Amino acid sequence: MAVYTRIGAEQMAAIVDAFDVGTLLSAKGIAEGVSNSNWLLEAQRGQDEARRFILTVYESRTDVTDLPFFLDLLDHLAARGCPVPRTIHDREGASYRKLPTSEGDKALALIEFLPGVSVSEPTPGQARAVGAALAQVHLASRDFASSRENSMGLASWQQLLGDCGEDGLASIHPELPAIVTRELDLLARKWPADLPRGVVHADLFPDNVLMLGEEVTGLIDFYFACTDLLAYDVAVTHAAWSFSDDGTRFDPAISRALIEGYESVRRMSAEEHAALPLLARAAAVRFLATRAYDWTNTPEDALVTPKDPLAFARRLQFYAAPENAGIFAAS
Amino acid sequence: MAVYTRIGAEQMAAIVDAFDVGTLLSAKGIAEGVSNSNWLLEAQRGQDEARRFILTVYESRTDVTDLPFFLDLLDHLAARGCPVPRTIHDREGASYRKLPTSEGDKALALIEFLPGVSVSEPTPGQARAVGAALAQVHLASRDFASSRENSMGLASWQQLLGDCGEDGLASIHPELPAIVTRELDLLARKWPADLPRGVVHADLFPDNVLMLGEEVTGLIDFYFACTDLLAYDVAVTHAAWSFSDDGTRFDPAISRALIEGYESVRRMSAEEHAALPLLARAAAVRFLATRAYDWTNTPEDALVTPKDPLAFARRLQFYAAPENAGIFAAS
Repeated sequence: MAVYTRIGAEQMAAIVDAFDVGTLLSAKGIAEGVSNSNWLLEAQRGQDEARRFILTVYESRTDVTDLPFFLDLLDHLAARGCPVPRTIHDREGASYRKLPTSEGDKALALIEFLPGVSVSEPTPGQARAVGAALAQVHLASRDFASSRENSMGLASWQQLLGDCGEDGLASIHPELPAIVTRELDLLARKWPADLPRGVVHADLFPDNVLMLGEEVTGLIDFYFACTDLLAYDVAVTHAAWSFSDDGTRFDPAISRALIEGYESVRRMSAEEHAALPLLARAAAVRFLATRAYDWTNTPEDALVTPKDPLAFARRLQFYAAPENAGIFAAS
Repeated sequence: MAVYTRIGAEQMAAIVDAFDVGTLLSAKGIAEGVSNSNWLLEAQRGQDEARRFILTVYESRTDVTDLPFFLDLLDHLAARGCPVPRTIHDREGASYRKLPTSEGDKALALIEFLPGVSVSEPTPGQARAVGAALAQVHLASRDFASSRENSMGLASWQQLLGDCGEDGLASIHPELPAIVTRELDLLARKWPADLPRGVVHADLFPDNVLMLGEEVTGLIDFYFACTDLLAYDVAVTHAAWSFSDDGTRFDPAISRALIEGYESVRRMSAEEHAALPLLARAAAVRFLATRAYDWTNTPEDALVTPKDPLAFARRLQFYAAPENAGIFAAS
């Protein structure tokens, strides 16, 4: 949520020129994205209408070898009518460029700016639209040639939660070590590996969806996108949208609308439906794992407050409770 | 350089409605301004063209009782053709509103977005335009009815540098305690109190000027504006523009162009010319004082690196050197 790289106006004008989008009219560093630096740019070519772009400089947490997957995916989806930003290619046709900095070379990319705001209190109508947009991505990426392993899959949850240590987990909540052991064991034994796979966003929280009213104008931040179970992506999105931030309140109307919206575009199989309760627990464990890791590995005096892992432990408890088994029943 | 206040999309839409600028199309937190939170908003009323605005939420460092001065000044200057953003008044005609937050009420204001970028390697042509724009502000504010004492004047420099302590100053540079004592003594004895006074920006660094080519499209961030010597504002702007950031390189062409540009709009008196060498030392002391204070009062493990006080100690040495006495000679 910051700008980590300094780019002077003259350097910014040179970047804009390298992408052949005209003269730089404005550049504002924006507080968006978790680990990369972003600017909202405006540029104008000749007498054309001025256009806006997001410039992203990839900081150390993004692996540059993954960039072609992420950026080609945007172009693939945009070409098939999905509400995602197109990438701008430079004069040589490349989708990203090198930026020399005092910390060494970094990669940068220029993508289309899309209007819309990220809702914080979604309505069922908005959840329905998000579900439909996710299904649209799943269908549109069926003929996307590249693939990328999910670096945030079960093995990484085991690693991250193991690194927290039993004491670390217990310091968050006394019951957490037992819960984590139970869930990791369950997921390893029962992972439904033979469900339909494809390109998944894997992080479709409200922050990563731009909306105007009930219309999805942009799905953004595909930097966790990978090849995995489509129903797992539905489960992640369900965990991200159907609860209050702190995980204490489940909203059945949002939950229903999200799944119905998804299935209005892509019908899930009986096997996928049957797997959703387990995949929802998996989704909760995935965010519990990264949050617990950050929680136990952030110095006490750090300026950045880590997000509360219990928000996802609560979702996990909700999904694991027998009385909630029916929330994914086919409508 | 951050967004300190969280505003959800629904609350943002309500703010935009209170200012009667239509429907919210986009809202991005921007990394601009030192101590307030800022967003770049886009909104559209009916079929009108979409318009952009900067929303500022004033954090604890801005005194709300000063806001009418700052905001009325923008409207006054804009009405007289100065390149400053207009403020948007709400449905009740107020130039700022209260925002209830978990940290208590904060004030917020909506101002016009202006195109342009902040240059980091100015050309003489750009410096000339900045000098002219500053003079335009000085002339246009002659009939501005309000006044505001300079809270960052000589008394505050004495206070801030005193709070650093002799050891604190010596830890920055061994000669700094003696230099500071000499300068504060000189300024107290020789302050040219009877020069023309008026509204000054008092912080016109390149960051606070938006430009397109050699045209000034916006002077922004008037939150140090106050009533003081006009020639002191020229001196601050000179110290801000005529050196490399670290103060090691003086650029005589920028220096000349800035003063010439200023005088192309407002001719300085012989007394003002004669006072410029002293006022330039004062300007260097002003930024040395705040930087030395931040330097000696920032915990070593803080994430924010304080700016180097020596950058202004070097400017001070430059201005104090007898061989540089001629740089402000009337052209």
